[in-house]
Amino acid sequence: MKELKDYVRSIPDFPEKGIIFRDLTTVLQDAEGLHLAIDEMIKKLEGIEFDVVVGVESRGFILGAPIAYELHKPLVLIRKKGKLPCETVSKEYTLEYGSAVLEMHKDAIQKGQKAVVIDDLIATGGTLECAASLAEELGGTVEMILCLMELKGLKGRELLKKYRVESVIAYDGK
Amino acid sequence: MKELKDYVRSIPDFPEKGIIFRDLTTVLQDAEGLHLAIDEMIKKLEGIEFDVVVGVESRGFILGAPIAYELHKPLVLIRKKGKLPCETVSKEYTLEYGSAVLEMHKDAIQKGQKAVVIDDLIATGGTLECAASLAEELGGTVEMILCLMELKGLKGRELLKKYRVESVIAYDGK
Repeated sequence: MKELKDYVRSIPDFPEKGIIFRDLTTVLQDAEGLHLAIDEMIKKLEGIEFDVVVGVESRGFILGAPIAYELHKPLVLIRKKGKLPCETVSKEYTLEYGSAVLEMHKDAIQKGQKAVVIDDLIATGGTLECAASLAEELGGTVEMILCLMELKGLKGRELLKKYRVESVIAYDGK
Repeated sequence: MKELKDYVRSIPDFPEKGIIFRDLTTVLQDAEGLHLAIDEMIKKLEGIEFDVVVGVESRGFILGAPIAYELHKPLVLIRKKGKLPCETVSKEYTLEYGSAVLEMHKDAIQKGQKAVVIDDLIATGGTLECAASLAEELGGTVEMILCLMELKGLKGRELLKKYRVESVIAYDGK
């Protein structure tokens, strides 16, 4: 039987030499792959009490939306700067070169709500740390950071050590 | 009973004076709203034979992914320039000021596959026409262009007249 890992396309030397890019599109563009990805992520949430799914733009939307739909939870969005039309909280995070800003609507999370933060990949953890702290700034608690894939060599879990972090597919490298 | 339209937040004079912005985030961040949105879109697909869901970045991902998951179809992505890691087809489209480019992986659609193109909003139809023609360039046929909302005053249906176009919520204005 085909495992979830078998659906991921690995692209050597992209975006630069020495990096193996893990391509999610080949998972999504197979009906079985898509189902397996969402179902395996949902399994990680078993026993976790939470109120709201937080999806991180934009691959986190692709995985977060079916999870929210299937589990009958609200989906709230963390977007890049300037994309949300109402009042937001925002936070800068560091990229390899330079920085970027993530935003969340102020009404996206109510004080005391329990959130699960969803994205495709745990790399250095910088984006996810920024996303989780936005949810906390609005008074939410982060019950889990859940991603489909994880690059263990980048040690994202160290940066995210105050959170419960789960992934479905882990790669040793970067 | 609350209708789907009741979940949409209308923001007057955004992004500029005279425009009423229809905000999808208040639909998504209510579990009932999210379910109703996806279920009403799925209803529009009843009786339509198709092979693949095409989601347009990035709000089309949010709606397309649960539809693909629920109907057990593949999800393929149309992204903004430079986001897809493998070989792509690309096409420019006109915005109010300037232009932008959409891309699709060359292996996203096989010749003869039937596609449904999903996005949040039918406005002028420019983005959707670009997306549909990318699917066609790969040898697919577009069985439906399906959006949650439609701004009838912008006459997107005229630009898209060769396609079957469906929306769940229609607004008269712009």
